[in-house]
Amino acid sequence: MMFASLVEVADFALNAPCFDEAAADAARARQNSLTKPPGSLGRLEEIAIFMAGWRATPRPAIKRAQALVFAGNHGVCVHGVSPYPSEVTAQMVANFEHGGAAINQLCRASGADLSVIALDLDRPTGDVTQGPAMSEAETLDALRRGAEAVDPEADVLVLGEMGIGNSTIAAALACALFGGAPEDWVGPGTGANSAGMSRKAQVIAQGLELHSAARGMVLMAALGGREQAAICGAVLAARAARIPVILDGFICTAAAAVLHGVAPELLDHCLVGHASAEPGHRRLLAALNKRAVLEFDMRLGEGSGAALALGIVRAALECHNGMATFGEAGVSEA
Amino acid sequence: MMFASLVEVADFALNAPCFDEAAADAARARQNSLTKPPGSLGRLEEIAIFMAGWRATPRPAIKRAQALVFAGNHGVCVHGVSPYPSEVTAQMVANFEHGGAAINQLCRASGADLSVIALDLDRPTGDVTQGPAMSEAETLDALRRGAEAVDPEADVLVLGEMGIGNSTIAAALACALFGGAPEDWVGPGTGANSAGMSRKAQVIAQGLELHSAARGMVLMAALGGREQAAICGAVLAARAARIPVILDGFICTAAAAVLHGVAPELLDHCLVGHASAEPGHRRLLAALNKRAVLEFDMRLGEGSGAALALGIVRAALECHNGMATFGEAGVSEA
Repeated sequence: MMFASLVEVADFALNAPCFDEAAADAARARQNSLTKPPGSLGRLEEIAIFMAGWRATPRPAIKRAQALVFAGNHGVCVHGVSPYPSEVTAQMVANFEHGGAAINQLCRASGADLSVIALDLDRPTGDVTQGPAMSEAETLDALRRGAEAVDPEADVLVLGEMGIGNSTIAAALACALFGGAPEDWVGPGTGANSAGMSRKAQVIAQGLELHSAARGMVLMAALGGREQAAICGAVLAARAARIPVILDGFICTAAAAVLHGVAPELLDHCLVGHASAEPGHRRLLAALNKRAVLEFDMRLGEGSGAALALGIVRAALECHNGMATFGEAGVSEA
Repeated sequence: MMFASLVEVADFALNAPCFDEAAADAARARQNSLTKPPGSLGRLEEIAIFMAGWRATPRPAIKRAQALVFAGNHGVCVHGVSPYPSEVTAQMVANFEHGGAAINQLCRASGADLSVIALDLDRPTGDVTQGPAMSEAETLDALRRGAEAVDPEADVLVLGEMGIGNSTIAAALACALFGGAPEDWVGPGTGANSAGMSRKAQVIAQGLELHSAARGMVLMAALGGREQAAICGAVLAARAARIPVILDGFICTAAAAVLHGVAPELLDHCLVGHASAEPGHRRLLAALNKRAVLEFDMRLGEGSGAALALGIVRAALECHNGMATFGEAGVSEA
């Protein structure tokens, strides 16, 4: 998937694969024939039907689950928006590669193949209070790298991110997309105190003023980051291959929300794995009309909440595919 | 574990193993040293610390997860409290044994060894509007069978139940324990309509009037059932072996709540796997001061919500045991 310019992303939306209603209807009928009171598996049934519609088959299965974590560095860190230094991004990438981070354990637990893609960590994006975060060429490059990382043979895609300073970037994108004051979208991130949060809000206000004309994917170039653009690329490549996506928390969802700004239906194949403790996430979920799979007071990023939710999606499909029907089991119906 | 009389259960409470605060403190310290902002794994951290305290080790692991589903039949079914006939209890037990039920798929997904224990299905309990559900001897026998089913080598125990009519029994127990009107605790169960729910409330009102003097485990004999008593026996045997328990939904929690009536601390080693869509469950969780692990609009029973939550508990311990510390990974702290 290559885009020659950022406006071409809108064209993709016009031809993107749609939810297969016939497959979903067949999955729904199967759910109602299984040995349980109809509807009694609750959201597990909804997830199975969601997967059926996007995989375009009544009996979707997860043979291969892919997890992608994109990492980037951010020029806004010069303003002291994070209590951690930018070096931690590369240190955490090394931790991912050595298997020591939460996402490694959670991917092992849920059976996902993890790849970590560090995006030019030695070249932070521009300071959004002074100019755009990225050029169009840089944004397109990150989109492409995100898209190319997606395995078209995967049955489900878990997305996550790492990047010191990127909760400020996420809040800026969310505020640009959905309005409100910067303070409405700012939270502690990795652990900013109230002075840190004030700095975040101030940086965002300056960035929004400077880039008030940015729309669509140009917003990503203006206020985003490489890992945010890569997430969008991965979401689009997954859509092209009918691979349902599990987004992670605030930062990952805010990145994908830029696609919602291009065309809301571009996120229809995306679940949100968990509702983050980062306060802006609930507001963002409401704006996107999404209900998270899990609510676990997590706020780590790395794809951790999405990987945890993958276990739930697997369980939903195990029930969907493995249960006997009333007829098969000789169980009397109501 | 044998009790010679129902009042002896209260003596068990006096000598039951307690939460190991030192192990929990060590687990908490470890959580704060792992490569993540402190607290950022949210409830996964709480679960790891809970497991550490009950397993009495700073690094608890799940080598063996046991799931027990107890099944029983109920005399109250003569009043038409369920849209399903009592035969379905045995039919579903056969379905469990053949691997066709939701609980089979969910135990496979979460790595639990499932045993199903059918308790005298051809001898339903007594009609609680006419007399006690069980004699003291029958109640003690079911307690013992529940206790004996617990593998003392298990690291965690998932509990569930099956029994046509038992949402009425659960509501009766909850109403007797925590007050309110029968209607406050009655819900559709497997799918009762409003006339069915009225019958359930009426049966409960009659049962409560007849057995208004029943307290402690005598309440189980008066208004309970075999699978409810077996759940209590399993909870006690697990406590004796320091095995944390994951309770399922409304019916399973209401059964265990009888132990709370004996001594509230008897449920301290129990998580509740999910908040059921059965409306009485939220009221019951509030009365027990428990927050469910998952909220998934499930209302199937069989241990299904508890088995799903086991996957979360496993993920919590994978993070706890597998993650690198800041020192090990060479990651800068805030």
